[in-house]
Amino acid sequence: MANDDRSVRRVRDLGEQGILQCLYQFCPADLVGDDAATIALTPDLGDSLVVTTDVLVDGVHFSDRTTSPEDAGWRAVAANLSDLAAMGATPIAITVGLALTGETRLCWVEGLYRGMVACLDRYRTAIAGGDVCRSSVNTVSITAFGRADGARIWRRDAARPGDAIVVTGWHGASRAGLELLLDPDRGKALSADDRADLIRAHQRPKPRLDVREALRGAIAENENDSQTRSYAAMDSSDGLADAIVQIARASGVGARLERSQLPQPDSLGQLATPEQALNWVLYGGEDFELVLCLPPAIARSLLSRLNAEARIVGEVTREPGVYLTGTPGSCREQQLSLKKGFQHF
Amino acid sequence: MANDDRSVRRVRDLGEQGILQCLYQFCPADLVGDDAATIALTPDLGDSLVVTTDVLVDGVHFSDRTTSPEDAGWRAVAANLSDLAAMGATPIAITVGLALTGETRLCWVEGLYRGMVACLDRYRTAIAGGDVCRSSVNTVSITAFGRADGARIWRRDAARPGDAIVVTGWHGASRAGLELLLDPDRGKALSADDRADLIRAHQRPKPRLDVREALRGAIAENENDSQTRSYAAMDSSDGLADAIVQIARASGVGARLERSQLPQPDSLGQLATPEQALNWVLYGGEDFELVLCLPPAIARSLLSRLNAEARIVGEVTREPGVYLTGTPGSCREQQLSLKKGFQHF
Repeated sequence: MANDDRSVRRVRDLGEQGILQCLYQFCPADLVGDDAATIALTPDLGDSLVVTTDVLVDGVHFSDRTTSPEDAGWRAVAANLSDLAAMGATPIAITVGLALTGETRLCWVEGLYRGMVACLDRYRTAIAGGDVCRSSVNTVSITAFGRADGARIWRRDAARPGDAIVVTGWHGASRAGLELLLDPDRGKALSADDRADLIRAHQRPKPRLDVREALRGAIAENENDSQTRSYAAMDSSDGLADAIVQIARASGVGARLERSQLPQPDSLGQLATPEQALNWVLYGGEDFELVLCLPPAIARSLLSRLNAEARIVGEVTREPGVYLTGTPGSCREQQLSLKKGFQHF
Repeated sequence: MANDDRSVRRVRDLGEQGILQCLYQFCPADLVGDDAATIALTPDLGDSLVVTTDVLVDGVHFSDRTTSPEDAGWRAVAANLSDLAAMGATPIAITVGLALTGETRLCWVEGLYRGMVACLDRYRTAIAGGDVCRSSVNTVSITAFGRADGARIWRRDAARPGDAIVVTGWHGASRAGLELLLDPDRGKALSADDRADLIRAHQRPKPRLDVREALRGAIAENENDSQTRSYAAMDSSDGLADAIVQIARASGVGARLERSQLPQPDSLGQLATPEQALNWVLYGGEDFELVLCLPPAIARSLLSRLNAEARIVGEVTREPGVYLTGTPGSCREQQLSLKKGFQHF
């Protein structure tokens, strides 16, 4: 009553971040703001439950044009498991809430589930039930939950000046794969293998659940550096630039990235101009790799345990702002922002 | 390919139970078929995680005509916590996945969350994050997490011949409240208090999370009767008849119910014919009480610990089929089925 203006504001006026900020007021502060929520299961913090939810809507997140039901299922599961990976958790199970139109073909639903189970099987995880109901638009809501042991050492707000910024693998590949699916005439110069790799990066992304063990080993090897602190981590589902900017903001720091170090598949150069390729690497999204900020010794030790595409791409700075140096054709540094990423509203 | 017929079957041809049966093939058998899934967290079964999901769609599960956003939020949470109650679990947290149209008013979303938090606060539970995205229809997907200790003693398939069937409270009240909301001219003979009670039963149902402690006490008091077996339990969200029929089917037994023992608020008689009132009691749904099958001594001990509306309504039989005796105006027994309940497709 006191605020008439508020009563007529609509969802589309606020945008996704605006709505999330508004909804955060209803949630305990320690449970929101990261890729997933972490809840202590035992008073001594020996074991924590890590929980994350994604809602996917037909025509917004998947479409028969570029995505088979099997791939839609795989991608939906991979996105949720990637959020668990970004919290250093191992998956326990998922639940699936389905809202379906009456016209939906049973074979579509079965394909969706086959794709989900194919991805889950890889990580020895199962579907622990769910719900199904009628709707005017097909909607898939997945909640994944995992277990993390020890205190919470992976968090978005834990980057410190001097940390090395580690990226676990190729970026831009998923976006390039989507381009090839949308326009099959594109990228004729690509080899069949390169084409298949890019399309697979889009259709069958792999959550980096292997990083947890590798980081444990790296920490153990450099124990003196790391005994009491947390590390910043986030997945790059909304783009590499988004992940780094979000970590920097949450941690109250800045970052400096080196263009030549950003891990980009060679084949991108045959498909796009350098400028477009850089745009895909930074803002394409859905590569489902991890971005971590770690003391340099731990970062180097982690790289030695991961695949060759993992790189140190820059450094956390005391000064705010995320800057990219060494951009080809530009003598100035480029400041990165969230604005170019995908916005839901 | 081998089964062309299958490829053109659509969701509306199968119905809700048909789709669920089809989807169960993708889930481990021990994780589906109950109100919620139970997952052992430690190898010795000392602590289990219990998980349940509901998807609610605007126009199907809630409507501005009968439900304020606050009530829609309360009811959505109550339904999920009721599933945990039916598994003997205490709630840990929920996640909320929202799909919203751009036209949705912010005050509607805030009202929904206020209602959810009001219900959660009662049970010292919080929202542990979620997701929000764009859709053509407002959809709310809730996943609730709980904890159960000990081995799994509450399960749908554990009823045994000779068990007493306990119902924890009034049935038909939620359905009567909905009638009053849909047709305010109805039930003029009701007192203001009775009218408010029925409407509140519909708008603000209370999950029976108190039954767990009461049953623990009842089991402890009758230890010799109960040392090694599980008990059948289910919530009555889809109707009292549905709960009893589902338990009987899953357990491979039958049941005999006594009409005069079904707990029904007196005010139903002033609002509906005896036949209609019975229909609401059996098939109305959304009363969110529990139905349990227990050895008679434990059942009597449980009743002494619960409120007066809790009743023993009948007995589990060796012969299949669920029968109601003592129906007014009918000399024959009535066989109960799932068919009259709400079907989504």
